[in-house]
Amino acid sequence: MVATPQKPAYKVIGTRPVRPDGVDKVTGRAAYGADVVLEGMLFGSILRSPHAHARIKRIDTSKALALPGVKAIITNADFPTQESGTLDLGEGSANPKWLVDNVLAGDKVLYHGHAVAAVAAVDWHTAEEALGLIDVEYELLPFVIDVREAMLAAAPILHHDLRTNVRARNADTPKDRETNIAMHMRVEKGDLDAGFAEADIVIEREFTTSQFHQGYIEPQNGTAHWNHDGQITVWTSTQGAFSVRDQVATLLGQPVAKIKVVPMEIGGGFGGKIPVYLEPVAALLSKKTGHPVKMWMSREAVFQATGPTSATWDRVKIGAKRDGTLVAADVSLCFAAGAYPGSAVGAGVLCALAPYAIPNQRIDGFDVVTNTPKTAAYRAPGAPAAEYAVEAVVDEIARALDMDPLDLRLKNAPDEGDTNSSGAPWPRIGAKAVITAIKESAHYNSEIQGEDVGRGIALGFWFNGGMESSSSVAVNPDGSVSLILGSTDIGGTRASLAMQLAETLGVPYEAIKPQVVDTDSVGYTAVTGGSRTTFAGGWVAYDLGQEIRKRLTERAARIWGVDVSAVTYNDDATITGTDKDGKAQRFTFEEICRRLPSTGGHIAVSAMSRRNTAGPAYAGHIADVKVDRETGKVTVLRYTAVQDVGTAIHPSYVEGQIQGGAAQGIGMALQEEYWYDDQGHLRNGSFLDYRMPVANDLPPIEVILVEVPNPGHPFGVRGVGEVPIVPPQAAIRNALRDAIGVNFYHTPVTPTRILDELLPRA
Amino acid sequence: MVATPQKPAYKVIGTRPVRPDGVDKVTGRAAYGADVVLEGMLFGSILRSPHAHARIKRIDTSKALALPGVKAIITNADFPTQESGTLDLGEGSANPKWLVDNVLAGDKVLYHGHAVAAVAAVDWHTAEEALGLIDVEYELLPFVIDVREAMLAAAPILHHDLRTNVRARNADTPKDRETNIAMHMRVEKGDLDAGFAEADIVIEREFTTSQFHQGYIEPQNGTAHWNHDGQITVWTSTQGAFSVRDQVATLLGQPVAKIKVVPMEIGGGFGGKIPVYLEPVAALLSKKTGHPVKMWMSREAVFQATGPTSATWDRVKIGAKRDGTLVAADVSLCFAAGAYPGSAVGAGVLCALAPYAIPNQRIDGFDVVTNTPKTAAYRAPGAPAAEYAVEAVVDEIARALDMDPLDLRLKNAPDEGDTNSSGAPWPRIGAKAVITAIKESAHYNSEIQGEDVGRGIALGFWFNGGMESSSSVAVNPDGSVSLILGSTDIGGTRASLAMQLAETLGVPYEAIKPQVVDTDSVGYTAVTGGSRTTFAGGWVAYDLGQEIRKRLTERAARIWGVDVSAVTYNDDATITGTDKDGKAQRFTFEEICRRLPSTGGHIAVSAMSRRNTAGPAYAGHIADVKVDRETGKVTVLRYTAVQDVGTAIHPSYVEGQIQGGAAQGIGMALQEEYWYDDQGHLRNGSFLDYRMPVANDLPPIEVILVEVPNPGHPFGVRGVGEVPIVPPQAAIRNALRDAIGVNFYHTPVTPTRILDELLPRA
Repeated sequence: MVATPQKPAYKVIGTRPVRPDGVDKVTGRAAYGADVVLEGMLFGSILRSPHAHARIKRIDTSKALALPGVKAIITNADFPTQESGTLDLGEGSANPKWLVDNVLAGDKVLYHGHAVAAVAAVDWHTAEEALGLIDVEYELLPFVIDVREAMLAAAPILHHDLRTNVRARNADTPKDRETNIAMHMRVEKGDLDAGFAEADIVIEREFTTSQFHQGYIEPQNGTAHWNHDGQITVWTSTQGAFSVRDQVATLLGQPVAKIKVVPMEIGGGFGGKIPVYLEPVAALLSKKTGHPVKMWMSREAVFQATGPTSATWDRVKIGAKRDGTLVAADVSLCFAAGAYPGSAVGAGVLCALAPYAIPNQRIDGFDVVTNTPKTAAYRAPGAPAAEYAVEAVVDEIARALDMDPLDLRLKNAPDEGDTNSSGAPWPRIGAKAVITAIKESAHYNSEIQGEDVGRGIALGFWFNGGMESSSSVAVNPDGSVSLILGSTDIGGTRASLAMQLAETLGVPYEAIKPQVVDTDSVGYTAVTGGSRTTFAGGWVAYDLGQEIRKRLTERAARIWGVDVSAVTYNDDATITGTDKDGKAQRFTFEEICRRLPSTGGHIAVSAMSRRNTAGPAYAGHIADVKVDRETGKVTVLRYTAVQDVGTAIHPSYVEGQIQGGAAQGIGMALQEEYWYDDQGHLRNGSFLDYRMPVANDLPPIEVILVEVPNPGHPFGVRGVGEVPIVPPQAAIRNALRDAIGVNFYHTPVTPTRILDELLPRA
Repeated sequence: MVATPQKPAYKVIGTRPVRPDGVDKVTGRAAYGADVVLEGMLFGSILRSPHAHARIKRIDTSKALALPGVKAIITNADFPTQESGTLDLGEGSANPKWLVDNVLAGDKVLYHGHAVAAVAAVDWHTAEEALGLIDVEYELLPFVIDVREAMLAAAPILHHDLRTNVRARNADTPKDRETNIAMHMRVEKGDLDAGFAEADIVIEREFTTSQFHQGYIEPQNGTAHWNHDGQITVWTSTQGAFSVRDQVATLLGQPVAKIKVVPMEIGGGFGGKIPVYLEPVAALLSKKTGHPVKMWMSREAVFQATGPTSATWDRVKIGAKRDGTLVAADVSLCFAAGAYPGSAVGAGVLCALAPYAIPNQRIDGFDVVTNTPKTAAYRAPGAPAAEYAVEAVVDEIARALDMDPLDLRLKNAPDEGDTNSSGAPWPRIGAKAVITAIKESAHYNSEIQGEDVGRGIALGFWFNGGMESSSSVAVNPDGSVSLILGSTDIGGTRASLAMQLAETLGVPYEAIKPQVVDTDSVGYTAVTGGSRTTFAGGWVAYDLGQEIRKRLTERAARIWGVDVSAVTYNDDATITGTDKDGKAQRFTFEEICRRLPSTGGHIAVSAMSRRNTAGPAYAGHIADVKVDRETGKVTVLRYTAVQDVGTAIHPSYVEGQIQGGAAQGIGMALQEEYWYDDQGHLRNGSFLDYRMPVANDLPPIEVILVEVPNPGHPFGVRGVGEVPIVPPQAAIRNALRDAIGVNFYHTPVTPTRILDELLPRA
């Protein structure tokens, strides 16, 4: 672990206690969405489109409704009409009309697996059987899967009322014709032409990336009960209970007051468990039947109809001086949004060049609809594809200039005060500290030996989020403190927030009892995502801790009969002072808490935090690979992830986040992709065929934590969960170039693609 | 409804909206303790003593443990050793050692039905079968049921280490010998001898009252899971989740941090659902088996082993002048505490003479252990027996002086500034307003006709409680407000607290979403009991409402760019002011709430209240009865309950409380009693034999609400739930005197006792 500057002497932060939800999760007692059982519960299932693009001419549910045990069937028409507008999902926003149409198709189905109708029945098998009795008449329409084809003037149009939202000065994108290009944004600074004129070398390349799925173990689920008094309760595994509440409220045309969302434990999300799919459907089925309705997705449905990443088509042109100074960059990112607008291209634009201080730059982003599932956030959404393309070109520049790729990067790395792509100055950041840590690492200084082996490095960047978090605390007479959280716990939220409260109070970790509650039981809290939760939730914990310190100090002053100024709350959680007789007095934390009930009552406090001082994160990965020329198989021999984590609250969970992100990125680099046939059908919608990496596909992921504290957080927290997924695609790709001399311009680099390059062409 | 003085023009308070839990309760969806179902749950049952008093020589569980399906058996020895001390139960306190011994008997069983051992098995029938295989060797001991006999020197002694705790100056109660008298307290003021010397008439009478059970519909239940990480979760139907937490923590020797209590809905409590019986047993069985364990009581067990009231033996001597002025009172109250000390005699002492301003008085109270179940709180605990005796003597004085019994009472009723039995001045009270309302009532001014009919009146008094309540609120962008409660909802808590928050904010009742949560999710909140919840919870709601008003005002000021002093929160929940350009501005509550997310975030606040400004309650009841001389059956022809309720927040629920209390009091007056045979066995432990009144035993209970606002509460709330159970026994008894000329000195006045008086003696 590398810490810059000197880290304070924390007592709890930096330790590795067991998470509060640990025992329940290893013994199977933790309750996930699938564990919800309610009296009189019905089971819902969804009929999905067999076509990539078709008009729905007629839905006949009569035969299905006649099946004994079937209680209700709904279609898009059962939703209230949506006014156009936007709905904040926590990581992006959406048009409610499109959100409804994605949940149950409107007049058209727009992708293979698109939901068409939903059945509630007395058991799941009956519901499934009923699906086969629903008669849907389709009129097939031409479809488009590829983002490049979708942008052509002759492409089949998905939404005839869609016009390009142009957020680019001086761009010539037409705004008034039918198109699949939902949005064109541009960020620029400096003088691009002048910049390229300065360059001694210019490299321009095109890249494509496939569509990747988050691959969470637990499929989407949702149970809803629409009570006779109009109150709707939703149980679901989600990253954001309040986001589900807001989405369900909007889609059902109900005020949020009518909706309570109970967040169950979540078996992975990675951004994909922010949008709603089943919850509003279950609610409408419940309204129609008077019973609670439980729904869950098959794995096939998860692949077909929940949000994977965008497939992308990207162009990067970078100019450099002979000494390695990067002087100009022109980047274009085209992201397939799937069936409805709203890819992560905007974040891709803002991240693409963030690892470098390039004075003259322009980045264009295009959001393009295609006949594929509506994309959703996936860990650093938008950043992996954008930075992959940039890191590949930077690697080629280093080779062209015969420079060490790390030295080139260090030379161009931004520092505090340099401006980002939007022209705003960077706060304290760890870009150079990360590169330096790589240079000094055992891995980078080791020799790599053998045939067809190579080493690559790549950097990664993610903003990290702020947003709003709320919590309440209650101080118990035994010196324990209940910490009530609105954030669902994905990667150790309970532990990391409890640790920050314990540190603030000076009490042991074990004294804090964190609990995740429903949306009626705590203040508004944004999604667990964007690498914001440990940051924003930590701020709330800190604020609450300070308030408790203040109140305990006041209580001690009252007990001792003196002014509060005569009393000190010490960092060891003792309270000292002199009483009204001038006698020295002291309470331990437990002692003052024990006195609470008899000296005015217990202490309970709520707080909300929404600060925009999140600390951006930089990462750099080192990959060693070996290529088998016979089979095209790539073995990752060694892999090290270096990252500026600000302050590692719980280093084990930080390391886990980094290892998980790196593993997913390696999957993107070498194995995973959505595969559509010529009918636009997804043909590998199963874990067997989709090929996420499993344990024997990966080496141990070594982790080096760099700690450049975020000055915008009381404990220096930056987010840690997103950025580790950014570097792997380029690190592996650059390693492959080192190993076999081939530059790849597409991920994943599957054995087939390796062999395409290595075998003699036909 | 009579309001004194002028009541403010409330918008929400005084209306009768549907309670938030209403639909769930009428549709059967509300989840009570019996509805708890957990994965891998075991079922627990309890072996109970067949003897009233016996030493346990040996417990052999080997045969029971060998029964297939039996997972664990525990006895008293499985509890950690308790240091002596006291534990606050919310309505009274207890020695933890005695509390453990009551939960599972120690070396002795002290009453018929006393718990001896507990079994956990795979199903309830197996657990029950196993009970029959537990071999307990008892050594029978002499027992004592009657409180008078228990006080005799020759009585069988229950606890050889028990000595009288004398809290009476100048009392000659011995403190150093074996005894069943656990406590003797005395309250006195004035000069008793001088007072009686002034009197023209002195009447002294002795009374006895039987033991009554609260008779809640839902039997006690408790489910517990002792997790592998040491965390204990308890699901139970209780009046106080935090009280259960504290009791379970003490009995199990665990910090409260380890215990979470989830309060389920409660099917009646009336004070009886404050002590724990099953919860710590279920927890220990869970610890032993590793599974959650669910337990519930049979109705027989409820009667045998949960807390009924004390049977009492009382003496009242009152002196009056010829003009009706009461000048002296000497009262002695002996309360059977049951097997362990801790009857409600203390409250009886403080209530006995509260309806009168008598200058010279002495009240003695004795807490006496007997071989009957440990008593618990029951609606105005201690007051009904004490005030019954006083109201009977006052009635006899009125007859002796030939005064209207109401005029006598009005003449002696206390007013603000008069002193109570402890010598402290009364705050604003409604004693005279209640008596005046009775005098003016249609019922009191109606003629009563027929043979063997009579009318009686009686007053009642209860302090009402304050204690500690906590709540949190979260303001939603649709203008709704989540109200998070620690108080379990017995008589409409959610509604009455939501109404007070709505009134404070100036928003409709429907805008408030109250929710009762577990002990980890809200600040400390004392039991729902003592008629404290609407008072103390209302204070918290008011404080939170004021804080929300303040914060919304600040937000508007920030939006308008002006100082907060230029902004007004109006009582119609609009916010008005002028912006920085001097332009008049206005937000409705919904409008400002909609702006919260985009102007700094949502609002969430917690508050705790513990005020000692509860407003005492007075009631007066009128009973018309008719006696059937052939069968002894008494028909209550008409019944009116008049009560100073301070302010009726939700008049329907206030009326319901009063009707319920009156019905229970009439049951005590005429029907209910514990019946022990000569072996000390309870012989009527079923609803069939115990004879609580059912609908056809009662007339409609007419209610007249008098509103003398409590100056110690922002909305004038006094408690309403307790005092209506106080007057019925004396009102009925005095009516019987009017009907058939017989003064009864025991309740209940059953047909047998009527016939004993009316039929020629053998």
